[in-house]
Amino acid sequence: MGGDSAPMIEVQGAVAAARELSDSVEIVLVGDEDRICRHYDRDEGDRLGIRIHHTTERITMEESAAFSFRRKQDASIVVATRLQKEGEIDALVSAGNTGAVVTSSLLTLGRIAGVLRPAIAVLVPTPTGHTILLDVGANSDCKPVHLYQFAVMGMIYAREIFGVADARIGLLNIGEEDSKGSEVAVQAYRLMHEARPHLNFIGNVEGRDVLKGTADVVVCDGFTGNVILKFAESVVGMVMQTVRSGVEKDMKIRLGAMLLKPVFRRLKSRFNYEEYGGAPLLGVNGVCVISHGSSSAFAIKNAIRVAAQSVQNRISDRIKEELDREQAESRVLG
Amino acid sequence: MGGDSAPMIEVQGAVAAARELSDSVEIVLVGDEDRICRHYDRDEGDRLGIRIHHTTERITMEESAAFSFRRKQDASIVVATRLQKEGEIDALVSAGNTGAVVTSSLLTLGRIAGVLRPAIAVLVPTPTGHTILLDVGANSDCKPVHLYQFAVMGMIYAREIFGVADARIGLLNIGEEDSKGSEVAVQAYRLMHEARPHLNFIGNVEGRDVLKGTADVVVCDGFTGNVILKFAESVVGMVMQTVRSGVEKDMKIRLGAMLLKPVFRRLKSRFNYEEYGGAPLLGVNGVCVISHGSSSAFAIKNAIRVAAQSVQNRISDRIKEELDREQAESRVLG
Repeated sequence: MGGDSAPMIEVQGAVAAARELSDSVEIVLVGDEDRICRHYDRDEGDRLGIRIHHTTERITMEESAAFSFRRKQDASIVVATRLQKEGEIDALVSAGNTGAVVTSSLLTLGRIAGVLRPAIAVLVPTPTGHTILLDVGANSDCKPVHLYQFAVMGMIYAREIFGVADARIGLLNIGEEDSKGSEVAVQAYRLMHEARPHLNFIGNVEGRDVLKGTADVVVCDGFTGNVILKFAESVVGMVMQTVRSGVEKDMKIRLGAMLLKPVFRRLKSRFNYEEYGGAPLLGVNGVCVISHGSSSAFAIKNAIRVAAQSVQNRISDRIKEELDREQAESRVLG
Repeated sequence: MGGDSAPMIEVQGAVAAARELSDSVEIVLVGDEDRICRHYDRDEGDRLGIRIHHTTERITMEESAAFSFRRKQDASIVVATRLQKEGEIDALVSAGNTGAVVTSSLLTLGRIAGVLRPAIAVLVPTPTGHTILLDVGANSDCKPVHLYQFAVMGMIYAREIFGVADARIGLLNIGEEDSKGSEVAVQAYRLMHEARPHLNFIGNVEGRDVLKGTADVVVCDGFTGNVILKFAESVVGMVMQTVRSGVEKDMKIRLGAMLLKPVFRRLKSRFNYEEYGGAPLLGVNGVCVISHGSSSAFAIKNAIRVAAQSVQNRISDRIKEELDREQAESRVLG
């Protein structure tokens, strides 16, 4: 109920997912039953096995996550996480308040044993595909070991969802040399370096390298990740705006812009991650995929697909196994 | 001697500056005399008052700053900083190794009394002009009071060089609320908030706001600043590349790209700061302007202009006065 066009877009995306993935996915729509019902054909929904779990409250985009979690125990996000905890559902997809999804997942589902901090992973476009960037906002302050665990979780996400064996891991930093950067970055570098060859750590990557695709997974603290992600969106916006402002003045440029429309459309779509639908919160004891508040139904459908794959490939178990194995090999983790 | 096309571009820029600013500026070229002389007409140079200070060494882009500073005491960067310390010159402009310029300036010129950490300030484009962003790389780890001082130095730079009275100061953060972000950001917010109305602090700005121009000065730690600056360059590069890859396939897109060339040219120039020529290292006891290694002669000329304005408007004195005044009013600074 928390997305910008909720629940319409969510319902449309869920129906599309149910049609496409009906063999493997059962959808439960968690929210206001009356409002949900306005947006789809119940008969078809029943045939597709879509159920509704009625809730009375919603958390808006503006509300404080911690406060609304305590106060709104019947909010759709809170109820959906509880349903997952109780085993009623296997995964949660939400286009609502990111902070509320993170808080509710953390406090209700808890963390995978061994994981110190869950992290949000997004996909950024590269010339040949995409790079996984994490954390982009769950943790403002990170210790080296947190960054190290992000690398491990990113590696498993790359492998289980995108089939990338032995993902190349890069540490976002301000220079390539191992002595560069903040104290946290220098120590995280060492942890990742020591974890080779098990972790395919390729070293520091600079801001300019993220979009080049030199790494399959780029690790950073949630402060830096969040800032650059939002900054990137605005750079693309600025490009568009510069073109538009030229367009107003000049016929030739107007024609040029018209001809280039398909290129700009492609460009915009490469940066809005809709293809992949959402950003998983890796490290919680369950599956939680966060979609952009302004997601399309197409994005929601894809987020449901990613959530289903995460359940099928047992991502949380894989993360736990990896950390257990490392602890057994007594590599530094604390 | 350290720029990508040194000393040719530097000499051409210096000659252009001497022609344009001959009333107010005397140029001293610090570097290998033989190589410098190949790139300009000595007769005209003499008329313009250009002098050469011969040095035998240079620090390359790849060299470690601290190491090369100790080992290469006759490197052009090191000698130029020493000449400033000795009062032979008033300001330094370099397109060489940024780390070496920062190290040499810090160790030779020292900091302005009261300044805890000098910071590098760049200009990023906005719809109506530009925003000053600092620090972009001099300090990977920052305390709240460092960020606070960056705000003060940014305010003075905006006022003395760009004539912006009462510059709007924003703190780069991951949300607008005062409780958002890293511990350092939360505390820096409080320091800046308490400094109002003397400091025109408008609160947190997010990554997406930097290019909108909502603030005249955006403050962040040097790690985040460096990462987003380099990331921004690569986003523009990616836009170009996406257009080019479309161009190869389609005649209509080829025509569109041709017609839009002036727009793309404008776009690229908005992001490479050449208009302003360089980034001052604010807070050192002197004037030090760092230009991009791949600067054009036009950029070098403009960097010299900024350096001259910084001397004429006595930026370092203004920073000192501001910090003194604050200490006298016993606002928290340590």
